[in-house]
Amino acid sequence: MIEEELAPVQRWAVKLEYDGTGLVGWQRQKSGVSVQSLLEEAAARLANNRPVSSITAGRTDSGVHALAQVAHLDFPADVRFSRHSVREGLSYHLKPHNVVVLDAAQVDTDWSARFSAIWRSYQYRILNRRSRPTLLAGQVWHVKSTLDVEKMQEAANILVGSHDFTSFRAVACQAHSPLRTLDQLEVSRHGDEVIVFAKARSFLHHQVRNMVGTLKLVGIGAWLPERVADALEARNRCAAGPTAPPEGLYLNGVGYDPDPFD
Amino acid sequence: MIEEELAPVQRWAVKLEYDGTGLVGWQRQKSGVSVQSLLEEAAARLANNRPVSSITAGRTDSGVHALAQVAHLDFPADVRFSRHSVREGLSYHLKPHNVVVLDAAQVDTDWSARFSAIWRSYQYRILNRRSRPTLLAGQVWHVKSTLDVEKMQEAANILVGSHDFTSFRAVACQAHSPLRTLDQLEVSRHGDEVIVFAKARSFLHHQVRNMVGTLKLVGIGAWLPERVADALEARNRCAAGPTAPPEGLYLNGVGYDPDPFD
Repeated sequence: MIEEELAPVQRWAVKLEYDGTGLVGWQRQKSGVSVQSLLEEAAARLANNRPVSSITAGRTDSGVHALAQVAHLDFPADVRFSRHSVREGLSYHLKPHNVVVLDAAQVDTDWSARFSAIWRSYQYRILNRRSRPTLLAGQVWHVKSTLDVEKMQEAANILVGSHDFTSFRAVACQAHSPLRTLDQLEVSRHGDEVIVFAKARSFLHHQVRNMVGTLKLVGIGAWLPERVADALEARNRCAAGPTAPPEGLYLNGVGYDPDPFD
Repeated sequence: MIEEELAPVQRWAVKLEYDGTGLVGWQRQKSGVSVQSLLEEAAARLANNRPVSSITAGRTDSGVHALAQVAHLDFPADVRFSRHSVREGLSYHLKPHNVVVLDAAQVDTDWSARFSAIWRSYQYRILNRRSRPTLLAGQVWHVKSTLDVEKMQEAANILVGSHDFTSFRAVACQAHSPLRTLDQLEVSRHGDEVIVFAKARSFLHHQVRNMVGTLKLVGIGAWLPERVADALEARNRCAAGPTAPPEGLYLNGVGYDPDPFD
């Protein structure tokens, strides 16, 4: 029996920043432009128009932004690249879209942007004032009622740790297990902005947005912080608050050990 | 001789935030949409379609943003307003433009947004990294070469104080005197961003952008800080650096004593 030979590849990790406005999210879809399709098409241009596939650390939804998303790309082995040429070449071909490659690094072919990740962090930005956003339009969730950040933090502390997050996962979530360990969930105010920072090894689909939608109910005084414990115990999506809109969410960073970009 | 009677008016001070992208600046112009025309048209809607005129503290240029611009509006005396109704009514009629009224306060008719102002402050945002901006596109000046912030501050210190700023004013500047007192000019780094903060009683046309364009030459090492003293002494626009682009500039705030919004 002859083993089928795979064409030899070189794998590159790339760090991406993007404005999710107007994009259908990470994953390739027929309904519009995705980050994945933009990135793979830019990569194909660098590979003399041969197809290049990508795997990402976080499949962000439509409208969600990224400050430091990580993906890997498998290029044909016969193209000669440097960190500089991958970063600049991809960024060039990603124009005029608001997607850019911040950094690139060659990695072993057993390294995976998705499976080698040891943590992901997100921030959720809420513009908490009467007036609608102008400079931050499409980049924050606008909440008019004054949020009580201390009460939100009290509720957030209930969610930190290892739990069954069924109440906070999208009904369509495809993960095998609803168990996750939430390492950090921090609520802070910066002038008119309230920021929720979340860090975990991995998150369920919509988990951050569902937690933020629930914390907002606590912040406006509609829920007491204790009710979040009841919502968590219910293991029922209907027991928690609504999903916060995508435009406030940012994939902040992805951790690896060692960090391929160091 | 009969004295002509002016229709009685009520004067309102308004605080505005706007994204200058796509606007021709503050002042009404035939070439496009101005903040002034948007504001006066929104005000006319609140005044049963009678004309309302405005005066501003800072006539920002095309593409320049504002975090807390101040203007005053003279409404007919017979309309009944509250702070709430002026703020919400104007903001409603300013839709869908990225211009919003943050606050409103009734003032005496001898109070002027322009002449009662005791200081103006601006910030200039530079994105100082290799990769082009995505989320901050149109809201920063992208400078790829690493800026030496300490050297820039050394140069900035030369400009602080009372000087003839002829070298840093637009040739078309209509101010009677080129003398200005610059109270603060501070350069700081926040990760990938370099921010120049400027405060003075008033500024000449393009003064902040011309100072930033010159400080950038120092930051990239093309100029020694001392050369800024020579440029200042030359009293010649050609002796200073180029004008930094409008998209990095923000009118941060305008000071009054007492503050009508307090």
